[in-house]
Amino acid sequence: MFHRVKGMMKNNVKKNKMVYFFDEGKKEMRELLGGKGANLAEMTSLNVPVPSGFTITTETCDQYYVQGKKFPKGLKEQVDANIKKLESKINAKFNDKTNPLLVSVRSGAANSMPGMMDTILNLGINDQVVQTLINKTQNKRFAYDTYRRFIQMFGNVVMGVEHHDFEQEIQKIKDKRKVHYDTELTADDLKELVKNYKTLILKVTKKSFPEDPRIQLDMSIEAVFGSWNNPRAIAYRRLNDIKGLKGTAVNIQAMVFGNMGESSGTGVCFSRNPSTGENKFYGEYLMNSQGEDVVAGIRTPKHIEGLEKQNPKVYKQLVAIKNKIEKHFKDMQDMEFTIQEGKLHVLQTRNGKRTAHGAVKIAVDMVNEKLIDKKTALLRVAPESLDQLLHKQIDPKAKTGVIATGLPASPGAAVGRIVFTAERAEEVAKNEKVVLVRTETSPEDLIGMSVSQGILTARGGMTSHAAVVARGMGKCCVSGCQDIVVDEKAKTLTIKKKNLVLKEMDYITLDGSLGQVFKGSLGLVEPNLSGDFSILMEWADEFRKLKIRANADIPRDAKVARAFGAEGIGLCRTEHMFFDGDRIKAMRKMILANNEIERRKALAELLPFQKSDFLGLFKEMNGLPVTIRLLDPPLHEFLPKGQKEIKELAKELKVTPEWIMQISKNLHEVNPMLGHRGCRLGITYPEITEMQVQAIMEAACELTKQKVDVKPEIMVPLVGKVEELINQKEVIKRIADQVMKKYNVKVDYLIGTMIEVPRAALTADEIAVEAEFFSFGTNDLTQMTLGFSRDDIGKFLPDYLKKNIYEKDPFAVLDQTGVGLLVRMACEKGRKIRKDIKLGICGEHGGEPKSVEFCHRAGLDYVSCSPYRVPIARLAAAQAVLK
Amino acid sequence: MFHRVKGMMKNNVKKNKMVYFFDEGKKEMRELLGGKGANLAEMTSLNVPVPSGFTITTETCDQYYVQGKKFPKGLKEQVDANIKKLESKINAKFNDKTNPLLVSVRSGAANSMPGMMDTILNLGINDQVVQTLINKTQNKRFAYDTYRRFIQMFGNVVMGVEHHDFEQEIQKIKDKRKVHYDTELTADDLKELVKNYKTLILKVTKKSFPEDPRIQLDMSIEAVFGSWNNPRAIAYRRLNDIKGLKGTAVNIQAMVFGNMGESSGTGVCFSRNPSTGENKFYGEYLMNSQGEDVVAGIRTPKHIEGLEKQNPKVYKQLVAIKNKIEKHFKDMQDMEFTIQEGKLHVLQTRNGKRTAHGAVKIAVDMVNEKLIDKKTALLRVAPESLDQLLHKQIDPKAKTGVIATGLPASPGAAVGRIVFTAERAEEVAKNEKVVLVRTETSPEDLIGMSVSQGILTARGGMTSHAAVVARGMGKCCVSGCQDIVVDEKAKTLTIKKKNLVLKEMDYITLDGSLGQVFKGSLGLVEPNLSGDFSILMEWADEFRKLKIRANADIPRDAKVARAFGAEGIGLCRTEHMFFDGDRIKAMRKMILANNEIERRKALAELLPFQKSDFLGLFKEMNGLPVTIRLLDPPLHEFLPKGQKEIKELAKELKVTPEWIMQISKNLHEVNPMLGHRGCRLGITYPEITEMQVQAIMEAACELTKQKVDVKPEIMVPLVGKVEELINQKEVIKRIADQVMKKYNVKVDYLIGTMIEVPRAALTADEIAVEAEFFSFGTNDLTQMTLGFSRDDIGKFLPDYLKKNIYEKDPFAVLDQTGVGLLVRMACEKGRKIRKDIKLGICGEHGGEPKSVEFCHRAGLDYVSCSPYRVPIARLAAAQAVLK
Repeated sequence: MFHRVKGMMKNNVKKNKMVYFFDEGKKEMRELLGGKGANLAEMTSLNVPVPSGFTITTETCDQYYVQGKKFPKGLKEQVDANIKKLESKINAKFNDKTNPLLVSVRSGAANSMPGMMDTILNLGINDQVVQTLINKTQNKRFAYDTYRRFIQMFGNVVMGVEHHDFEQEIQKIKDKRKVHYDTELTADDLKELVKNYKTLILKVTKKSFPEDPRIQLDMSIEAVFGSWNNPRAIAYRRLNDIKGLKGTAVNIQAMVFGNMGESSGTGVCFSRNPSTGENKFYGEYLMNSQGEDVVAGIRTPKHIEGLEKQNPKVYKQLVAIKNKIEKHFKDMQDMEFTIQEGKLHVLQTRNGKRTAHGAVKIAVDMVNEKLIDKKTALLRVAPESLDQLLHKQIDPKAKTGVIATGLPASPGAAVGRIVFTAERAEEVAKNEKVVLVRTETSPEDLIGMSVSQGILTARGGMTSHAAVVARGMGKCCVSGCQDIVVDEKAKTLTIKKKNLVLKEMDYITLDGSLGQVFKGSLGLVEPNLSGDFSILMEWADEFRKLKIRANADIPRDAKVARAFGAEGIGLCRTEHMFFDGDRIKAMRKMILANNEIERRKALAELLPFQKSDFLGLFKEMNGLPVTIRLLDPPLHEFLPKGQKEIKELAKELKVTPEWIMQISKNLHEVNPMLGHRGCRLGITYPEITEMQVQAIMEAACELTKQKVDVKPEIMVPLVGKVEELINQKEVIKRIADQVMKKYNVKVDYLIGTMIEVPRAALTADEIAVEAEFFSFGTNDLTQMTLGFSRDDIGKFLPDYLKKNIYEKDPFAVLDQTGVGLLVRMACEKGRKIRKDIKLGICGEHGGEPKSVEFCHRAGLDYVSCSPYRVPIARLAAAQAVLK
Repeated sequence: MFHRVKGMMKNNVKKNKMVYFFDEGKKEMRELLGGKGANLAEMTSLNVPVPSGFTITTETCDQYYVQGKKFPKGLKEQVDANIKKLESKINAKFNDKTNPLLVSVRSGAANSMPGMMDTILNLGINDQVVQTLINKTQNKRFAYDTYRRFIQMFGNVVMGVEHHDFEQEIQKIKDKRKVHYDTELTADDLKELVKNYKTLILKVTKKSFPEDPRIQLDMSIEAVFGSWNNPRAIAYRRLNDIKGLKGTAVNIQAMVFGNMGESSGTGVCFSRNPSTGENKFYGEYLMNSQGEDVVAGIRTPKHIEGLEKQNPKVYKQLVAIKNKIEKHFKDMQDMEFTIQEGKLHVLQTRNGKRTAHGAVKIAVDMVNEKLIDKKTALLRVAPESLDQLLHKQIDPKAKTGVIATGLPASPGAAVGRIVFTAERAEEVAKNEKVVLVRTETSPEDLIGMSVSQGILTARGGMTSHAAVVARGMGKCCVSGCQDIVVDEKAKTLTIKKKNLVLKEMDYITLDGSLGQVFKGSLGLVEPNLSGDFSILMEWADEFRKLKIRANADIPRDAKVARAFGAEGIGLCRTEHMFFDGDRIKAMRKMILANNEIERRKALAELLPFQKSDFLGLFKEMNGLPVTIRLLDPPLHEFLPKGQKEIKELAKELKVTPEWIMQISKNLHEVNPMLGHRGCRLGITYPEITEMQVQAIMEAACELTKQKVDVKPEIMVPLVGKVEELINQKEVIKRIADQVMKKYNVKVDYLIGTMIEVPRAALTADEIAVEAEFFSFGTNDLTQMTLGFSRDDIGKFLPDYLKKNIYEKDPFAVLDQTGVGLLVRMACEKGRKIRKDIKLGICGEHGGEPKSVEFCHRAGLDYVSCSPYRVPIARLAAAQAVLK
């Protein structure tokens, strides 16, 4: 009994330790002390010259909220004790007449949330202390400048007076003194400003500015706690998917001053170049300044190399420190430092943010330097960031003047002349680069899209037709750009906000990675897939278990995919082959056929086209599997919509336009997504499946005879009930046997199905009896499982994200709880019946790192994604193993 | 060891017993001997005068197919042995010179499949036997007539010569003889016909007619086996949902002849009246005739009472037999008998088919007679058949001349003048009965539908708007009538097939139970809910566990539902309240509002309407729960479509028609089923939910004060993620609290959700944390789980049913494997988290007997269905317990 009580008390004591002095912590205590606090503690124990201080834990912040925004019991006492320790350590005291203690109060969560939460500097100053400072430094201007900076920061952050109100007070004095810059104000001006600031605070808040440093401190701690849940911080956490944190820690640290004359200064430095990744000391500093001056950009900071001349001793010390802590933290460090009267203080260190390019180089270099192992290196690069490396970018130097912003639908950059129709794109693209600008795109625009540099649409989300097709083609696309109004008839692109009208053949530039639109023709830079990139990819391949395939419909895309490391085609959408020139005509003839005989005639015209496509694709993927999905979309997608086109088609097919419109009307569906498509087409018109299988198998047979290693996998789409697969399998086998007999050659091929209808996942055991592979079509599976039409989600998804109903667009990041459960059920049921069933995913999620990780855990054999996302998937798959 | 071998041998012997003589079987051996065989055996053991014979088992038929359509080993020997037994029993032999054996060969599966499979009579006759017959009967005409009948039947059924070819041969002779009727042909004519028949068979089949009775028998057995899988039989089994049978048995039975003169005859009789159910001997007979003559309808059979005069001894014997076997089989019997030269033979008995009316009366009577118990009585009535009793029917005497056939979308009958628009329906209905005829209906037609007698549409399936709404209103509807072309503008209804054009104000009659359309005004008969019906319903209520609720939107429907025994409203679709007069205007104002303020203003106009609806509904359902679903359909459904209506609305709301069209365009969705609807509306426009909850709670509070017992259950539609429910729950609770505070009264109400999105079922455990009840919306759940748009399914479902991919329309009969799995998962997950969670179903399946049985097994608390299906559900729920 006694033991238990004692144990509980111990726990309580431990639980009640709310404050850690810097010498009590270490870098592993990040969850408790926040990133900044843990690293300050670690540096302290490394004997790096860190100004003394202590950290209030993140759990205390949690307690603060749990108790209804009240300080937990005992916090004040623990802060008092640590203040005492700090005072004795640096021999300074709050309100001391000779050596007054000034501190900074900074937020710092376990995950970095730069600039999202509050900071107060110079805390401890008041009317009395400012006099002591003057006496001590003999620098009245410095003392009053410090004082007014503190009141301004405290008044704004803690007491809630608008920043703008303080700025007005400064302006008033400057006007009175007829000066232009803050620096031109004298010590007395600043003294007057202090008085005016206090009056302002009293007027706005009905409360006096508190002179007692201890009260200043409590108010500041509370303000930092409060800033954990300010709207900016909440939004930042949502956007960056930061979850499960307790709150922010609060770091209270003795102030040092970079603005105490020309032997003082402040700076920021990186242990390596964060932009290029080069192992070269990199940074900026400014003498006689405080941190905010470096950031504010009024004075131009100097390159860190300059410090070597200015203060060789400090420079040498800084280099030694950065070497020491980089080695210690085993990652590129981003440090803040201050020089106070010739003495160096390091205020902060953290793992530095870096460009994708930098990340790759640093990771590879550090392995070569034996600082980290390959696993760590692989975990250091965010897969998503690789996108930057694989596409053209706007030259950073040239980038200026965004005229509109839409969704970053497909990464890269594009420059070209504006065209408003697919036909016009084809014409103009013969001589000039074009950018296709449309309200929204449809399958008819496919050719026009393929000849354009980029696509800009006013409507449609991240998974609209334009976005999906563009990503597939590796083409830059900005979609859903609500700032613009496109008038295809008048051939104008209007940006009301900017009072701007662009016309056909005007130049435009797109940044698909950021969703930005620029006027005119900006310079682009080519992607640079350095040796480091391919080294990192090879390492990823060593570790990953998932195979990576690509979604590619034509030989050109297949080639790109293979170059990026794809190990097969996971999805070839045969319908994309039907939109080109004569093909669409034959396709339309097929659709408009009166009966099976006419339909077969039209299909016979399509056969050679399909066959030649497959010949190209199989050749390109020699030795690798190619999954071919049979015709999927509803037939009405292939019919012309416009009056003019209908008339032309009617003339060509020798029918009346009314007939075409009648057929169109008959084919119209209320919910085409849930209509007559997928295997439902093949079941009602077996002759379509027959033609497609004939084309696939003839190509495969011919190439097999030419010693090309062909591995076709024929995929039946939209199966929901095993009987559908049985029906189509009979057709496939029958035709395949016929063709192989004709060519007198045997081709090993598989027959499998998409799992994209919830019912298919639910009855995967029944389906696995017939299917040699499952490919999860998570786009459609998400649509049906969630009941979200991808094309209509724009009407409510923004609200859903804002109200935290969904954290992310479920079409971008797989909904692991709902859709994921179906995927896991189907895998389990499928493997139970057919042990060696091949399992893959070919939805848009196949290239999204979090979803790739899910696929790894679910035990899939492969993921398939757009060619340009193959490297991302390779890295994500490796990380999934290493996590 | 020895034991095992012996055991196995025993099994083998048992397994190999392929033939049972009638004295070896009993009625419990139905699976093995088929219904007919088992009953013949049973009658034999009851000493009913059944002609001797034997039965080849259904398993033998299965073996026949398993072995590639070959007789299993040993079958011939067993048949031989039984023939021998038969011959010795009746002292007749195949080919015997004095007493030749003639037999019938009849099919007979475990389930009755009347007329679907083959029968051969008079087998054993040939050129020699016919002479013996002549000698024996001294009736040459009878002998040759028997012979030619056999050749004709055998030639057609066994040898595959067209029936028509035989008829031509008869015609030739009749022409030659210049006679009109078969009966006018002489013995010699028939003899000539026999010769001609044989020549015909040889010519068509290149095979001779076999003279050997034993060969005739084998060929006939094989033909009967073969008929098990003829297309008619397969279709019959699919339509009647007959599954799991091994095949057909074959009954070989000594022939008796009803056509051996005026002391012979044949007949069919029922132990009770199958039409009215009256306990009165009922039947028909014809002297000097064979069974086919009774059926053929050339001679008019006489009522069975006539036999009492004609042959009192036989009549008395027949009555005694029918009494005996009805008592023995404990069900109304349908018997076939033959009198051969004054001696009675019973050829068959089976449970008789009966009308719904008859079924109810017989079931109740037999309980009163203590012949069966209540449980048995309840199982004797097919729930679906009750539909006939609840609606008006076309007077059977008046029923003639179907002009078109569509889907039997909503039962009952309707007579009225044709109108082509809802507006016109309203006008004309003031003075005359109308039938609304449209290509398809939309929510705007609601009022027009409600004033019509019935609805006829050219498009749309069993679950189209017209069908669902009509069933809800208990109104007759024929939907998807592809025979008709409706021109709403020209006000014509064209039936091309019949070369018929009907105009506005022409009379038309519909049979919604059969999907038939008649020209003109046919007489109708009112439903007659006799005392027996309500007795049966009370018995059902004693046994069933499921509660039965109704889907009803307005007080009038609620009243009907309560009268039919509904124990609550399971689904009140609030949107149906918005289509009437001023309401639709306010609704449209709300939709066209520019901002929240305008929207709130329009909602305030809707509030009193909603409130008065709820007042009526709650009053009607005093003491019973009422589940109210918040607004569900996408807003564009409420906007006018036609130019004229748009112009009118624009004028009224003082906006431009362009503005309305623009809003319409903005609201347009590619897949409205998966779009901005359900709780998604309430989340983006919380003010809509607020208004609805205010209306519900104000009505509830007012009535509570008036001592009405109000039990509202507020249901949030289309939830897929618990966060959606949390969001709406906050609004509901907030407003409910406000209203209850205002009225100073407490109303017990529940908050729950539809489970209609697959994700909701998959995450039902999470949702159950917040939901007090689940109501499975199996319509939408089926749409999303199967990926079938209800509105578009017509394009492929017919093919799917034909190709046996689905056995039934999954919107009519719940897909238990797929959708059912989700329902079961959700029940389990829901109950795990919240033990007392209320579970119900409110989809169209709630009134379908098989689906009701599923709901019982899944452990739901209630089903909810259209008011007119409540009795069906009550009976089905009782049967689910008893099965």
